[in-house]
Amino acid sequence: MANTDSVKVRVLSLNCWGIRYLSKQCPQRYAMIGDMFEKDYLSLKKKLACSHPHSHYFKRYIFTIIPSGVIGSGLAIFSIHRIHDTFLFRYSLNGYPYMAHHGDWFGGKAVGMAVLNIGSLTANVYVTHLHAEYCRDKDSYLPHRVVQAWELQQFIRHTSAGADMVILGGDLNMHPQDLGNRLLRSYTGLQDAYLETAKFDGCEDGMTLIADNPFINKKELCPFEKGIRIDYILFKGSTKTDIYCDYMSTTKGSVPNHPFPYSDHEALTAGLRLETHTRTETRSDRQPKIKDSAAGKLAALVDIVTEARTEVKVGLHCAERMRYTATRTGVMGLALLVLELAIAAVPWLALGKEQPFPRTSFYLLAALCFAILLTTFLLYIFYTMELKALQGAEDQMRLAVGSLQEKLRGFPLAQPHNAPRRPQRVMSPVHWPRRNKRGAHCGQSGLCERSL
Amino acid sequence: MANTDSVKVRVLSLNCWGIRYLSKQCPQRYAMIGDMFEKDYLSLKKKLACSHPHSHYFKRYIFTIIPSGVIGSGLAIFSIHRIHDTFLFRYSLNGYPYMAHHGDWFGGKAVGMAVLNIGSLTANVYVTHLHAEYCRDKDSYLPHRVVQAWELQQFIRHTSAGADMVILGGDLNMHPQDLGNRLLRSYTGLQDAYLETAKFDGCEDGMTLIADNPFINKKELCPFEKGIRIDYILFKGSTKTDIYCDYMSTTKGSVPNHPFPYSDHEALTAGLRLETHTRTETRSDRQPKIKDSAAGKLAALVDIVTEARTEVKVGLHCAERMRYTATRTGVMGLALLVLELAIAAVPWLALGKEQPFPRTSFYLLAALCFAILLTTFLLYIFYTMELKALQGAEDQMRLAVGSLQEKLRGFPLAQPHNAPRRPQRVMSPVHWPRRNKRGAHCGQSGLCERSL
Repeated sequence: MANTDSVKVRVLSLNCWGIRYLSKQCPQRYAMIGDMFEKDYLSLKKKLACSHPHSHYFKRYIFTIIPSGVIGSGLAIFSIHRIHDTFLFRYSLNGYPYMAHHGDWFGGKAVGMAVLNIGSLTANVYVTHLHAEYCRDKDSYLPHRVVQAWELQQFIRHTSAGADMVILGGDLNMHPQDLGNRLLRSYTGLQDAYLETAKFDGCEDGMTLIADNPFINKKELCPFEKGIRIDYILFKGSTKTDIYCDYMSTTKGSVPNHPFPYSDHEALTAGLRLETHTRTETRSDRQPKIKDSAAGKLAALVDIVTEARTEVKVGLHCAERMRYTATRTGVMGLALLVLELAIAAVPWLALGKEQPFPRTSFYLLAALCFAILLTTFLLYIFYTMELKALQGAEDQMRLAVGSLQEKLRGFPLAQPHNAPRRPQRVMSPVHWPRRNKRGAHCGQSGLCERSL
Repeated sequence: MANTDSVKVRVLSLNCWGIRYLSKQCPQRYAMIGDMFEKDYLSLKKKLACSHPHSHYFKRYIFTIIPSGVIGSGLAIFSIHRIHDTFLFRYSLNGYPYMAHHGDWFGGKAVGMAVLNIGSLTANVYVTHLHAEYCRDKDSYLPHRVVQAWELQQFIRHTSAGADMVILGGDLNMHPQDLGNRLLRSYTGLQDAYLETAKFDGCEDGMTLIADNPFINKKELCPFEKGIRIDYILFKGSTKTDIYCDYMSTTKGSVPNHPFPYSDHEALTAGLRLETHTRTETRSDRQPKIKDSAAGKLAALVDIVTEARTEVKVGLHCAERMRYTATRTGVMGLALLVLELAIAAVPWLALGKEQPFPRTSFYLLAALCFAILLTTFLLYIFYTMELKALQGAEDQMRLAVGSLQEKLRGFPLAQPHNAPRRPQRVMSPVHWPRRNKRGAHCGQSGLCERSL
């Protein structure tokens, strides 16, 4: 494998849906998933036994990356190639602790990285899970997801400089043309296996959350009756390697000979082919075209980062309002406590003992005051942390836009206005309904879901 | 600068000590620090005006990376070179929220990275601040600091593959031969400017926290009467560049013409010189020696990572005990509540109204029970998160040791036992007193500071 010019890699991505006590048929499904891996491994071992007699090389190394979550919605990378190195990056934002029924905050979303050596090539494999989208029209988690996509692209870009091959698998919880998805793909240069594959076998439009899956509540998919594509396998090569996707497939809700599917999400499989090359051919004749295209891409990237920055600013505005509301409620709780103490002091001062002091109400009211003060104090701290994280991301985006614009000025031929702007305009209105413009009336609609 | 073979860079590192309401003379000191930067910038601009007429290149770009901390002990990178890209990594562990008087948890320790282009070279500049050491003999934060050092080396290693020059500045809160420091330097290959410098002017032994500083409480330095070296400038080149440290200096407590120093820590300045080369000379004659030395280094690294893993295991053991204590206290609180309710039910059941019901005690006791339950619940969640983070680091270390050992087997000449083992044995007992062996009696001494 090491000395040939072409290396084949098969990648599988699956959101296993394993929230304890909540996800259905967990032990059975996990056994099924384990069997699938086992069969794959044994068939591969058998198949390659002749050509690769040193089958110990294909010994199965298993490694699980545990994210910081409390309950622990784990990320895992399984590989038949030895994992040499790992690294975990926790996103700075991941929903709200008081939205316990959504549970994302407790899951601790992160991106895990494993460095594999495939022959003489280095492959960086990333796995992630971004914050879910519960209501597409009033998505109060959008700024968080955009910041997660921003941090994901930063992490991949900065850690993959030495890699010959970059693979990202996971549940991005974003539609193909969503802001975070465009940001991720444009900035890192990662390609979508579904769009690049030579052959495809699976659900319509590559959907990974489909109405036919028995674990799916069809109402929650609305307005996307058939389903949505939110799980991805993305990849890219390097200056030394080119990557092609030969085939791609998804499961289709049910699994043959099994009573139910592996998960509520469909599993994706992609067959990737790496070709190493030495760039001997001079591309001088293609230079102007390449330059033009690079400038166009750069201009599009500036637009996307600016759009992301706007979304983060909306999030900042909302977080500021929420912190203000928490502060105001806290002050009211304090005022109530002072008032109560004053009322309590009156009988003491007047020494009037004719009527009994309403002890029960007094203690209950005092407990309520303390509960309000404690809750608002915790919320104040939480919103301050959210503000800092959003502000940090916004600062980084501002700097990035400045740097990209300076780079763009280095292309005298390119006119940013000729570049493809706002690629989201291309999207089909049937598939991606317009988001509400929360920036304008954040206090009314965007916050409805987040208010206490 | 871009086209010469030698590039000079001046690096300054300073822990500014700016905790609001707590740090002394903050506004005055920050004005002094600002003046120092300003003077530096103007003198540089003046000096280079003739040789570098395009002084706009030296326009001052200022960027602040804000970490995730609540109160916000900020990390900042200032540069005369344009900052193209930034990235922030938050450590998974950083002390305990209930140790409010130590305050580290609220500060949100992180490592910030800025990518600068110096001429045609790429420099990755990192800034960090690790958890403080409050009691060297019974350092309950040691596992946290070791995990921070582990994550710091991971972050630097994985993000610096494309850099020609790597610089790390910051308050590591570790002595030169401390485990975390050895781990960081061995794994990343970073060199200590103080040890590598050709010329040095500053405090004895390069100390950065000295008894002569008026902001320092001399008692806290004990047993290091003169001071300690815990702030560093570390650097390394790449396969394309070699770096040398021409000079290094520290401030010495006082600043000429100013009433007090810049900070409670001394400022470090290092003059680095980059030389780009093309490795044309074949080193075949030196190969065996290089291989031997590489194997020796690898063997030493295996030892250091193993030592770090042991320390993390000690931390795991302590965290488990603490979680167990929290659970037990919670159960006791619950039992007390049940008992109280039972006592309250007795008069209701017996309908005996001869003696008045002790309402005040009843409500106070109920409040106490709820406070116990809430506190122990929060502590349980916190310790679970701590356990997950420690377990994650331990998993990564185990994998790294396996990978390093496999690499070591690739050096047939090298015998791990001939390699320099346990470099900490070299340390002077006067300067680095032996740490207590917490692993053996963690419950008695190591936890004393952490018990509620």
